Amino acid sequence: MSDTLSNLDGYVQASRADFENTLKEMVEIQTISMDPSHKADMLRGAEKAKLIVESMGGTAEIVATGGSHGVIAKFGSLPRNKTVSIYNHLDVQPANEPEWVREPFRFQVEGDTYYGRGTTDDKGPAMTVLYAANYARLNSMPININFIWEFEEEIGSPNFETLIKAKKDKLKSDVIVVSDTLWLDRTKPAITYGLRGLQGVTLHLETGTNDAHSGVTGGAARNPVGELAQLISQLYDAKTGKVKIPHFYDDVVPLKKKELQNFLASGFKVSNFQKVHGFKSMRAKKPADVLTRIWGMPTLEVHGIVGGYSGPGVKTVVPPRAEAKISMRLVPKQSPQKVLRLLTAYVKKLNPDVVVKPASTLGPYLGDFSGPVAKAASDAVQFAFGKKPTFIREGGSIGAVVTMDKYLKAPITMMGLSLPEHGYHAPNENFDFGQFSVGVKTFVKFFDSISRM
Amino acid sequence: MSDTLSNLDGYVQASRADFENTLKEMVEIQTISMDPSHKADMLRGAEKAKLIVESMGGTAEIVATGGSHGVIAKFGSLPRNKTVSIYNHLDVQPANEPEWVREPFRFQVEGDTYYGRGTTDDKGPAMTVLYAANYARLNSMPININFIWEFEEEIGSPNFETLIKAKKDKLKSDVIVVSDTLWLDRTKPAITYGLRGLQGVTLHLETGTNDAHSGVTGGAARNPVGELAQLISQLYDAKTGKVKIPHFYDDVVPLKKKELQNFLASGFKVSNFQKVHGFKSMRAKKPADVLTRIWGMPTLEVHGIVGGYSGPGVKTVVPPRAEAKISMRLVPKQSPQKVLRLLTAYVKKLNPDVVVKPASTLGPYLGDFSGPVAKAASDAVQFAFGKKPTFIREGGSIGAVVTMDKYLKAPITMMGLSLPEHGYHAPNENFDFGQFSVGVKTFVKFFDSISRM
Repeated sequence: MSDTLSNLDGYVQASRADFENTLKEMVEIQTISMDPSHKADMLRGAEKAKLIVESMGGTAEIVATGGSHGVIAKFGSLPRNKTVSIYNHLDVQPANEPEWVREPFRFQVEGDTYYGRGTTDDKGPAMTVLYAANYARLNSMPININFIWEFEEEIGSPNFETLIKAKKDKLKSDVIVVSDTLWLDRTKPAITYGLRGLQGVTLHLETGTNDAHSGVTGGAARNPVGELAQLISQLYDAKTGKVKIPHFYDDVVPLKKKELQNFLASGFKVSNFQKVHGFKSMRAKKPADVLTRIWGMPTLEVHGIVGGYSGPGVKTVVPPRAEAKISMRLVPKQSPQKVLRLLTAYVKKLNPDVVVKPASTLGPYLGDFSGPVAKAASDAVQFAFGKKPTFIREGGSIGAVVTMDKYLKAPITMMGLSLPEHGYHAPNENFDFGQFSVGVKTFVKFFDSISRM
Repeated sequence: MSDTLSNLDGYVQASRADFENTLKEMVEIQTISMDPSHKADMLRGAEKAKLIVESMGGTAEIVATGGSHGVIAKFGSLPRNKTVSIYNHLDVQPANEPEWVREPFRFQVEGDTYYGRGTTDDKGPAMTVLYAANYARLNSMPININFIWEFEEEIGSPNFETLIKAKKDKLKSDVIVVSDTLWLDRTKPAITYGLRGLQGVTLHLETGTNDAHSGVTGGAARNPVGELAQLISQLYDAKTGKVKIPHFYDDVVPLKKKELQNFLASGFKVSNFQKVHGFKSMRAKKPADVLTRIWGMPTLEVHGIVGGYSGPGVKTVVPPRAEAKISMRLVPKQSPQKVLRLLTAYVKKLNPDVVVKPASTLGPYLGDFSGPVAKAASDAVQFAFGKKPTFIREGGSIGAVVTMDKYLKAPITMMGLSLPEHGYHAPNENFDFGQFSVGVKTFVKFFDSISRM
């Protein structure tokens, strides 16, 4: 162990009360980005975050984005040192679920557990990394550490690109860390290196101006709900999930054998996955098949078909129009733009009256699970937790990752601290001292490794 | 012209003021069966109808059904005479459309036109036939005439079977006339002899307990909206309308050449049909094809798919359940029960997890377009209007017809008086003196012919 790291355990213990107070201050500001009535709290959250950084000797800047402000903080900026930028978000989900047994916006400590909305997603991890940065500063570690704190992650990062574009010169980085992911099991640390992308579309078909009587007109009248159902069944096989759009799979890079081995070592259990998500059955049962499907392969999904009668029973109308809400999750090297073109062309061929309107677009992301940054991350977790982490992908899309990849052009690794039992996006959200401790040690070790590169 | 009919024109002119007053009394009672706040008006309507019959020398009885009361009226009951029973309904649609330019429930006469909700559907035709019965009585025509007046037609006749079962012995008939249909053109009288049946079903698929995240679970998760869309596309080809359920068409009796010739002579115009129903395009363009589709062939229709996200844009959830609302219109000799069995078996084969729940059931009806009753009806229209009527079918289903067919077992003919311009189920509904005049003469002549059989 290098000298720099020798008093790390003492630091974690000594910082505990201060960390809990800092997290309390952040949790008790209701930064609910989805709720316009909390607009003032968003700015209060940014101001508080800035004060916390300044109290630790860093510098911080509140950045206007057009939406909620972002915060850019810095600990050190010597050009000769390596620079690590850490992304977290400080906005939270609403907390209206009836299952909350404590006040969601009152921070409460029970033993080693910290309760409150935002404790694990993502204020707890954000403040944990901040304490690691503080340690690096106190120990004069030769590294520059930036923080990029977003306040609109829970509403899809609508202004994050504005923030990054405005500050990209100040954010030149050797490594970027996103700390907003989960382990799959408390005993199995995980590092995420890949995400799926997303291309949403709505399909619109209008065949008339008003509801028609299915007795009077049925047989001659077109039925837009029926035609969209047919079209969807031509776009994919809902039973197997196989997408039928020509050339859809052309750019898919198959999972490497090593990647799948890593996935299988991550602590993922099919039965647990099925239970957590409330599925009565699934398209696949074997772990390798399920993991390949959710992390390694693209999808097409229909989220709803709007149009016609939706009340109780059967009202026998022929509706004049219908809309299908579709999205495709994409894997590395698939391009949302290309996939959108393929879909649009195929729909035009199958049913020329259907209008395709693009919705949200996010590129997939694939980082490295075996290079020097990945090794530094893995070593850091092993140092802190006593176990090598597994390298996994996630099936979802993090807009911020794609944006930072585009503008900051540095390797991105995703080192999260949240556990399944922390209630991510759920009632009774919590974080714990154990993960704070692991997190501080992990990031200090990681900073140390990067500083030596 | 027989003696009995010699003073008919004089009767029509002499009755005009009295008819208009009678129709005014009926129209101004708001018998909106769909609106529970008009419950008291339903009984007032029945009481008024009874008084009108009694004032003409008939007898009438208000019959409890469990819902709104029905009225059974009689003019004559000598066993040696033939008996004609006439069905009309005296409840009306609501009249909330903003396009009404007059008070919908104030009866107004403008020249030969009578405005008000219910004037053409179906109070005007009902009162018209009543004046024909009055003429028959005044002229001692040897015939018994019954009226069967329903007050729940606009809500699907939920208690009509109760009414007919209770009174079937009092309603023994040689002929039944339903007077609640339309001509397709003011210059082309029409008699309806066939109706399609109906079998509704809902298809339910539940694959989970709650919305799942399509990034986290998509690929492995089943999608009930997608699976129902696929199932629907396996049940029918929405583009052509062709139903794919095995044996679905087995019992369909193809239209006779003569029937199609009649249909084509009915005044039906594809362009007008398309315009009236607001269709941008249709599955067929040729009159013979369109008419065969709507009057002579069965359909499968999807009225809506419920489940998943239905708000603006695309919310990327995998929904836990979905429901499709389906109905099939059936033609003579198809049995709703058999078709339901065929559908259920096919769904079970295609997707065993889908639950089929039956909804409304109505049998198809096929009367005669060439026997003695049809000839009497045709002669009556020619006598009154100077033109032979065309015999048509309709694509919808009239529950009362099926019920009367089942319990009264007499030939049913459908002689309506409503015109397309009367605004059936529409704002500014109206009827007119011309159709009153034609109607009285038609029914008097019809009664005369039946009395001589």
